[in-house]
Amino acid sequence: MTADLLVVGSGLIGTSLGLAVPDGWDVLLHDTLPAHVEAAVACGAGRRWDGASPARLAVVCVPVGAVAGTLRELQVAGVARTYTHVGSVQAAVQAQLEALGCSLPPVCGGHPMAGRERGGPGAAAADLFAGRPWVLCPGERTGAQALTDVQELALAVGAEPVVMDPQAHDAAVALVSHLPQLASSALAAQLVEGETALAGPGLQDSTRVAASDPALWLDVLRLNAGNLAPLVRALAVDLDVAASALEAAESGGVQVLADLLRRGVAGRELVPVKRGERDAAFVTVSVSVTDRPGQIAGLLTSAAAGEVNVEDVRVEHVPGRPRGVIELLVRADARSRAEAFLRAAGWEVVERG
Amino acid sequence: MTADLLVVGSGLIGTSLGLAVPDGWDVLLHDTLPAHVEAAVACGAGRRWDGASPARLAVVCVPVGAVAGTLRELQVAGVARTYTHVGSVQAAVQAQLEALGCSLPPVCGGHPMAGRERGGPGAAAADLFAGRPWVLCPGERTGAQALTDVQELALAVGAEPVVMDPQAHDAAVALVSHLPQLASSALAAQLVEGETALAGPGLQDSTRVAASDPALWLDVLRLNAGNLAPLVRALAVDLDVAASALEAAESGGVQVLADLLRRGVAGRELVPVKRGERDAAFVTVSVSVTDRPGQIAGLLTSAAAGEVNVEDVRVEHVPGRPRGVIELLVRADARSRAEAFLRAAGWEVVERG
Repeated sequence: MTADLLVVGSGLIGTSLGLAVPDGWDVLLHDTLPAHVEAAVACGAGRRWDGASPARLAVVCVPVGAVAGTLRELQVAGVARTYTHVGSVQAAVQAQLEALGCSLPPVCGGHPMAGRERGGPGAAAADLFAGRPWVLCPGERTGAQALTDVQELALAVGAEPVVMDPQAHDAAVALVSHLPQLASSALAAQLVEGETALAGPGLQDSTRVAASDPALWLDVLRLNAGNLAPLVRALAVDLDVAASALEAAESGGVQVLADLLRRGVAGRELVPVKRGERDAAFVTVSVSVTDRPGQIAGLLTSAAAGEVNVEDVRVEHVPGRPRGVIELLVRADARSRAEAFLRAAGWEVVERG
Repeated sequence: MTADLLVVGSGLIGTSLGLAVPDGWDVLLHDTLPAHVEAAVACGAGRRWDGASPARLAVVCVPVGAVAGTLRELQVAGVARTYTHVGSVQAAVQAQLEALGCSLPPVCGGHPMAGRERGGPGAAAADLFAGRPWVLCPGERTGAQALTDVQELALAVGAEPVVMDPQAHDAAVALVSHLPQLASSALAAQLVEGETALAGPGLQDSTRVAASDPALWLDVLRLNAGNLAPLVRALAVDLDVAASALEAAESGGVQVLADLLRRGVAGRELVPVKRGERDAAFVTVSVSVTDRPGQIAGLLTSAAAGEVNVEDVRVEHVPGRPRGVIELLVRADARSRAEAFLRAAGWEVVERG
């Protein structure tokens, strides 16, 4: 019996794949750490691989620096029809596979644009890939069957497949993923020995990915160094110029800072944003509630009774205070009706400007 | 009749103050833009100031570069017992007030650590200050009454007053607020003319504050240039060294990158985080639902029926798909019971590693 999927590397991505495929898929799990396989099996991601059983598709989910060697071993053992990996860097892995003498027609690299700052099977989630792009990077010698098999996996876990040239992929992720990682790490590095008690959401958000595993990222940065180095240099130059402008702030430095801030606004407008965050079609209705069980349910039951379609819910915690605020995201054109209905139902709708 | 509060500058902060004080406070609103006063009055933040009526406390909520001049004018007119402002920089404003010949005993500067990347009265919210630190920065000649009056305002809007020396405040916010702003702007600036379609939550979070108003920030950066310049220089140097390390990645560069990533992890650990984000006392229970009205309400009603105390709710939107995921934050020790109860009630609890 040929399994549907062999997952080699049962960490965050591999275990999440096993959880995300539809019921009925036969998933084999492997990892050099036995505890990872045990955890992945325990949470229902699949069954333990015996080291020889064949699968239609083998997906290598190991740190990117180890991908080529691992994939080569699997191919020598002949365990799958198609081989893919989920490396954050594609061209360098492709070159390594060629150098190792892999047969290339059954290999199609790929990169699901999904992850989180924690790793391991304990961080896995069935919805990790839902709605996220999965970049497929066929090489020049990748066969049609291999591309189809990987595309099928991407669709099966709810991702949106996008085909890109490996070089184009690497250039794109250098800008939107690897540069922000290094910038976040460098910013967080400045906090060491500093006083951070007054920090708010701005610092929280801009340093979140700095918590990521250095060992995993080191491989990524190294293998995409060619694309990344000039971007990091350009960022360093902008900040160096800004530092000089601050030192000369009383004379001509202000214009330089203004230019940088304005370029930042323009760049931010190019970032795809979360629903509701900058989408004028949605607005927030805030309701003040006492902090006890059942309040969120009661509020949403009221909203449902009034046929108010709540798109999202956010609960504001106010440490040590007996009241909290629940924010409901609704369509802008439904706001007045929603507020009036909730007030009539006895809820304390908070005034907003 | 002496009003409780005179708000001069009815933008995000000023209007939010009017919304946030308890019922019964008499709030007077002023702004050089008549439309701002109209909007603030319309949403219930207070009533229009006639330009002469007195108030117990006048709070100046104008861009920080204009604070000292505005406060001086109010003091000359003798409209309040105590004068404060909400400037992101304290020492420079204090020096300007002295230079302008203000009477200092009735003046106590302050800085609520609250804001958002959008401005104006339309972005105001009654809960903006709830649970956030409000730094009180009395100068050497600030009187006890002035400090008490400003502290009363901070408590009235739900903030947590913290008394700090103006210089210590400015050094602290340079690190936790002004440096991240400039870093975020500089990172976002690199995206101009780049390809950002693959961007995910990492880039979204790390560039969020880059959307802020350049004119407001320019004042802040300029007035805190002394504290900020060396921090920006140090960040630029780290990134410059990282760029060189990437260029030499095949030889000795890797160690330098590894050190920077590890310093980033250490720095991130010093950032106070949102509840549930890294707090091991809380875990997420994910439930897959069809995307139609009333599902969130139904789920939370089920949870309440099972006496599951839901601490927070997050709705995952999957564009173009008929199903979504609702995440409930619960105490870790309540997880098994919550999952079992929700399953028994017919909900599709998503497996997690």
